Amino acid sequence: MRYCDLCVIGSGPGGQKAAIQAAKLGKDVVIVEKMDVVGGVAINTGTIPSKALREAVLAVNQVENVMAYAKDQFLTRENKLERLTSATNRVVRAEVDLTRQQLVANQIEIIKGHGSFVDSKTVNVDGPRGVEQVHAEHILIGVGTTPAKSPGVEFDGVNIITSDEVLKLPALPRSMIIVGGGVIGTEYASMLAALGVRITLIEGRPRLLEFIDAEISEALQYHLRQMDCTLRLGEKVVSIKKVAAPAGSRSDDGVLVQATLESGKVITADSLLYAIGRQGATAGLALEKAGLDADNRGRIKVDANYRTKVPHIYAVGDVIGFPALASTSMEQGRAAAQDMYGIKHESAAELIPYGIYSIPEISMVGWTEEALTKDNVPYEAGIAQYKEIARGQLLNDQVGMLKLLIHQETHALLGVHAIGTNATELIHIGQAVMAFKGTVEYLVNAVFNYPTLAECYKVAALNGLNKLRRS
Amino acid sequence: MRYCDLCVIGSGPGGQKAAIQAAKLGKDVVIVEKMDVVGGVAINTGTIPSKALREAVLAVNQVENVMAYAKDQFLTRENKLERLTSATNRVVRAEVDLTRQQLVANQIEIIKGHGSFVDSKTVNVDGPRGVEQVHAEHILIGVGTTPAKSPGVEFDGVNIITSDEVLKLPALPRSMIIVGGGVIGTEYASMLAALGVRITLIEGRPRLLEFIDAEISEALQYHLRQMDCTLRLGEKVVSIKKVAAPAGSRSDDGVLVQATLESGKVITADSLLYAIGRQGATAGLALEKAGLDADNRGRIKVDANYRTKVPHIYAVGDVIGFPALASTSMEQGRAAAQDMYGIKHESAAELIPYGIYSIPEISMVGWTEEALTKDNVPYEAGIAQYKEIARGQLLNDQVGMLKLLIHQETHALLGVHAIGTNATELIHIGQAVMAFKGTVEYLVNAVFNYPTLAECYKVAALNGLNKLRRS
Repeated sequence: MRYCDLCVIGSGPGGQKAAIQAAKLGKDVVIVEKMDVVGGVAINTGTIPSKALREAVLAVNQVENVMAYAKDQFLTRENKLERLTSATNRVVRAEVDLTRQQLVANQIEIIKGHGSFVDSKTVNVDGPRGVEQVHAEHILIGVGTTPAKSPGVEFDGVNIITSDEVLKLPALPRSMIIVGGGVIGTEYASMLAALGVRITLIEGRPRLLEFIDAEISEALQYHLRQMDCTLRLGEKVVSIKKVAAPAGSRSDDGVLVQATLESGKVITADSLLYAIGRQGATAGLALEKAGLDADNRGRIKVDANYRTKVPHIYAVGDVIGFPALASTSMEQGRAAAQDMYGIKHESAAELIPYGIYSIPEISMVGWTEEALTKDNVPYEAGIAQYKEIARGQLLNDQVGMLKLLIHQETHALLGVHAIGTNATELIHIGQAVMAFKGTVEYLVNAVFNYPTLAECYKVAALNGLNKLRRS
Repeated sequence: MRYCDLCVIGSGPGGQKAAIQAAKLGKDVVIVEKMDVVGGVAINTGTIPSKALREAVLAVNQVENVMAYAKDQFLTRENKLERLTSATNRVVRAEVDLTRQQLVANQIEIIKGHGSFVDSKTVNVDGPRGVEQVHAEHILIGVGTTPAKSPGVEFDGVNIITSDEVLKLPALPRSMIIVGGGVIGTEYASMLAALGVRITLIEGRPRLLEFIDAEISEALQYHLRQMDCTLRLGEKVVSIKKVAAPAGSRSDDGVLVQATLESGKVITADSLLYAIGRQGATAGLALEKAGLDADNRGRIKVDANYRTKVPHIYAVGDVIGFPALASTSMEQGRAAAQDMYGIKHESAAELIPYGIYSIPEISMVGWTEEALTKDNVPYEAGIAQYKEIARGQLLNDQVGMLKLLIHQETHALLGVHAIGTNATELIHIGQAVMAFKGTVEYLVNAVFNYPTLAECYKVAALNGLNKLRRS
């Protein structure tokens, strides 16, 4: 039996940061990880590999954008995916190494194996070198998720796939049906559409990314349609099946996939990506032995401090549900570990940014227009289009925009919403202004490097103030 | 005679912003512009065209960086420059249009022609439709600069050129001597080196970009050397001449350029770019009629409010010297117009950022280590390497770093220095924190999108605080 202060199950972003926070507080920490490498889905199959593909797509598109040089001249459908993901392994290896170094530097022990509860303070680790038990005063569950698979769907890893298999496809399909317009479905839809795959994206709700500002998600929808992506919003898939390609069709392998919608439409494509959310990876944890349970999507319920109903057991990251982003998982991990040891957690929840790595990318921080309207906060919106500023022209970014939500009376910055090149980076300028309760007058008076996208802040602030002056 | 409140000579960034500021205060404003288009050197021959080349170079390099796909496969030495600058005209046109629209929207009259003083309140405009005189209560000089040309040097636009001619070269030379390691020399040296031109950069001072943090400029020097750029620092050119290429050499046109250094070294290359600063474009202004004069570099002296020795005449932008960046010129223009009409200017001079668009790019805001040491301010530096964070790995940016200067006692953020991808954008996060007198604790507790380069702020803040804890 290994005794320790904290046992973390899962070495993804949430688990890592919890472990490091606890270690920095002088605690003896053990991480149980079932994979061969640390880092969880974020580093090994999800966030990082898909972002490596994305950087390559962006680089190639940018060549086309800024020098009118067709990407088709150096990428063919057959070699595309391979070329574009050629750097993925380098990046994954580097991230795994960095993570391991950080854990080791903080004297955190990593035990390889599958963890499951024996009781609420004991975790059984079934690993390659046998079975070991870890007894801990606190346990943190950060096991993440696996793609949800509908029982009626015949997944085969080639024609009908989950997000885990996109990057392993032998070649890019000519066409793809994507079921689910959440973060993962939207990110892949935009990336694959940018690579020339004809996409049909099906989402049951009336718009993509429902938690995002409506104007921004509409801009994304507009842009996706411009890239020949068909959006079927407010539609539901009732059946998915493989059919033989008719003689003479251009299918690579003679197989097509058909999705039938509730509305009666039948959609046919080379392939189908099933991206209806993900399932908490809690099935093998024996939660019941700890006095815990998961909902029908495998998720664990926690309170505002990430504490489960068993007070010394915490859960963070994708396994607790929305927003299931690496950045928020890290924050949750840190917050959970601080709560365990009675430290007040500092960060302001309303300043947590969201980043969606679609093409174009999306980011937001603070309030949405919908929320401000609901709470009767009087605001005005100031908008800058990337194409209005020099760097937007240089990047030939025709979609990009930055929207500031400004309090009508105090001129305080209440929210920032952005779509376009580097939106996920730019949002942090507004986040800092909001954190210090700044007004848009700061943005009007600040000097920005020229040419930068950051200049959008000044243009949007001026736009908002002009509207306020006229009203 | 046209009577007005303010006559601005030159429609570059400084002149524009002064004109718009005055117009917004209800003043009648005339701009005199000798070129066919508005925008000055910044839009038409300098900042914007060189940044268009730069974006293309970055895009092409990024393909190589993130997918190990050689740029040589789609660019040859002969077609490179043409392909890379193919987008330049589109961008220049768009910027000229935007600028003209802004001026028109603010009811600013643009009179085309060469302006010169008749007396301190009257400007003679010699234009295509004849001669006109403008009488104004205030005059603002924003005429910018032209490349300084040494009398002994035989400029020919092909082998021996100034920065105005780089983008007009018929093909990329195999090798180039660049005389002058200021902003322009350094930017072109890095861009051309990135395109495979063998560069020898000669600078009289012991390092490049002397106003930049030493660690950052050393990182740039290291990176330039990695790109096969030869740096001759602390060296002076005494003569430049053209010689016939020896038989059998690979010269395109049979001509080579030789630069002889004071130390006796002789350097030979296909071409030479003379980038020893720029000369204020004041020669044709008849300054003496207004009671003004220029120094031996054509520059006009102003006080802290950009007022010349004639109280109702102001000067802004490159014509007043350092730092001669479009961003600062805009700020100067606005400040000058505010001062004219008795409005207190708001922006904090110590928070003016500098952006150098070399490859990798450089930016800074606030204090340097040198300045803090001189003023006996106790500080610690916190550093993050791009390669330590996920997005740095994704971009394969091996050079990038962000340095925060932190007050040892208060933990206030005193300065931010960055080199690497998007440094000019990232600096604005730190600028906001500094503007609100924030401490690095804000950066430690903030949640950053993952993966972003902005995460460097958190890593650098933690690094700095750790050093402070140990000390």
